[in-house]
Amino acid sequence: MSLPKRIDIHEVGPREGMQIEKNPVPTADKIRLIDRLSECGFPEIEVTSFVSPKWVPQMADAEAVVAGIQSRPGTIYTGIYLNSQGMVRALKTGKLTVLGKLSVTASETFSRKNTNRSIDETLAEAVERIEAAREWQVPITEIGVMAAFGCNYQGDIDPALVVSLIDRLMDLANEHRLPVNLIQLADTMGWANPNSVRVLVGEVRNRWPAHRINLHLHDTRGLGLANAIAAMEMGVDDFDAAVAGLGGCPYAGFKDAPGNIATEDLVHLCAEMGVETGIDLDRIVDIAREAQEIVGHPLPGKVMRGGQLSAYRRRAVVSAPSDQSR
Amino acid sequence: MSLPKRIDIHEVGPREGMQIEKNPVPTADKIRLIDRLSECGFPEIEVTSFVSPKWVPQMADAEAVVAGIQSRPGTIYTGIYLNSQGMVRALKTGKLTVLGKLSVTASETFSRKNTNRSIDETLAEAVERIEAAREWQVPITEIGVMAAFGCNYQGDIDPALVVSLIDRLMDLANEHRLPVNLIQLADTMGWANPNSVRVLVGEVRNRWPAHRINLHLHDTRGLGLANAIAAMEMGVDDFDAAVAGLGGCPYAGFKDAPGNIATEDLVHLCAEMGVETGIDLDRIVDIAREAQEIVGHPLPGKVMRGGQLSAYRRRAVVSAPSDQSR
Repeated sequence: MSLPKRIDIHEVGPREGMQIEKNPVPTADKIRLIDRLSECGFPEIEVTSFVSPKWVPQMADAEAVVAGIQSRPGTIYTGIYLNSQGMVRALKTGKLTVLGKLSVTASETFSRKNTNRSIDETLAEAVERIEAAREWQVPITEIGVMAAFGCNYQGDIDPALVVSLIDRLMDLANEHRLPVNLIQLADTMGWANPNSVRVLVGEVRNRWPAHRINLHLHDTRGLGLANAIAAMEMGVDDFDAAVAGLGGCPYAGFKDAPGNIATEDLVHLCAEMGVETGIDLDRIVDIAREAQEIVGHPLPGKVMRGGQLSAYRRRAVVSAPSDQSR
Repeated sequence: MSLPKRIDIHEVGPREGMQIEKNPVPTADKIRLIDRLSECGFPEIEVTSFVSPKWVPQMADAEAVVAGIQSRPGTIYTGIYLNSQGMVRALKTGKLTVLGKLSVTASETFSRKNTNRSIDETLAEAVERIEAAREWQVPITEIGVMAAFGCNYQGDIDPALVVSLIDRLMDLANEHRLPVNLIQLADTMGWANPNSVRVLVGEVRNRWPAHRINLHLHDTRGLGLANAIAAMEMGVDDFDAAVAGLGGCPYAGFKDAPGNIATEDLVHLCAEMGVETGIDLDRIVDIAREAQEIVGHPLPGKVMRGGQLSAYRRRAVVSAPSDQSR
């Protein structure tokens, strides 16, 4: 089984993580966490969401967070937005890379619950989104399908449905000559397993071989890393992850919403299996522990508890030289 | 990739779990947990350890636990022991299936720390163990290697070393005509990854094709289920697991010892991937939640938080019939 030589990891913890915390995280702590993450050399850090403070009060300080962080060259800093108002807020910070994305949810029920729109309404609105992006010179580079593997409200999602939704989005992209180069498949509610990852990734890759595929995986039922491995075995080299496993979706109907796969656990896995990430493991493990302190409760990342094997290897060499000769 | 049609899961939670709890778990709670696990139809439940109450006070009630449980036909009830004194205690309960095991630790340092004996001393003592088992008519059916993938004190373990240790144990077994049919590979400190699982399982299977292989996996760094999948892909159909992810090893040098793979997470994974376990998922998820209440702190199992997909599927059918026609 061959794995990619190298994968890119998009750090989404500051955005995914902070939006579900019950106790507001002070803006200064968010900035500190992002600044520490900036030391790691991620290609992208999603730093916040430009959404209504009425619905997501945890993100009301979006502008203040962006104003406070120190950008480092080599990393792009992005924010999530759901409409053109949010897009303009992101642009006005003057510090973010603002990219457009056409996305739908594969579950009708979840689409209505999460965005108050049906799938067809979302697709119809995409044209407005495209026009707004053009007006503000924001390139739309990505197509995304949320709940692409299953939905807590609707059950399993047929891969054929996901492919047909990407098809419709791709038609729109072609019609408007959008520079789309990435297809994101999001397992928003943790329904994927290695088999379903292989099936869907296989179908999408066969259909759109020139597009890069990104996987956004939640570790809801403990299969997050197994799914990442299955995807890597299929050639996927682009993943979202959240430091310490921060995050989850406030509208996904969980009592105890489990978050994204933990960045440091993915980095560790890659280090063990010979896949480069460009991320320093010791540093990201330290930051995961810091993230846990910031939110003030245990987070699901495992390596920050069990300890990275590289550190144990170093200690073993130092402390037991006589054993090493065996 | 083909997976086994069916796997056997050995429930080790009552033994692995209770030995590391800081606050003593009342005997009645241990009995209640085991009785609930008995409803599931596991081929084996490891109920306790017959070890020195001086070293492991949590297991001082071993006899009382065994006396209190209700055995069900179809399940064998076993206890761990480290010497003939413990074996005789297990036999004297009159309720356990007492089987013998020849095991060593692949790490010299961990062997000394965990059992106060070198690897060679352990192998030398195996003869006494064999004689004691013969005297008490206990069949020795299993060979095991602990820390078979790596050790926090010693670093990586060479698969060739593991094979050579099994070889020495197998020679002993042949010499004494023991009915050994199982080889256990234990990732005691969570060092395995899917690649190393494939390598070691492949070497052991090629060398001893007639023996069944059991994997005892810890989820220390989040790879437990990914490792189980890799092993199943290699044909392994026998696993240990602990309900709710109870357990860990008190002498493994962790501050925050992560436990075995969670039984219900493994059952869930198998259900999703078409592998039979014979275990009712709803029931084992309920028991996992009960185990968490019994120990009084969060346990690492994921499905008991995220919810089993089968339950969401049932609800989706009931609550959104119009969506199902899409």
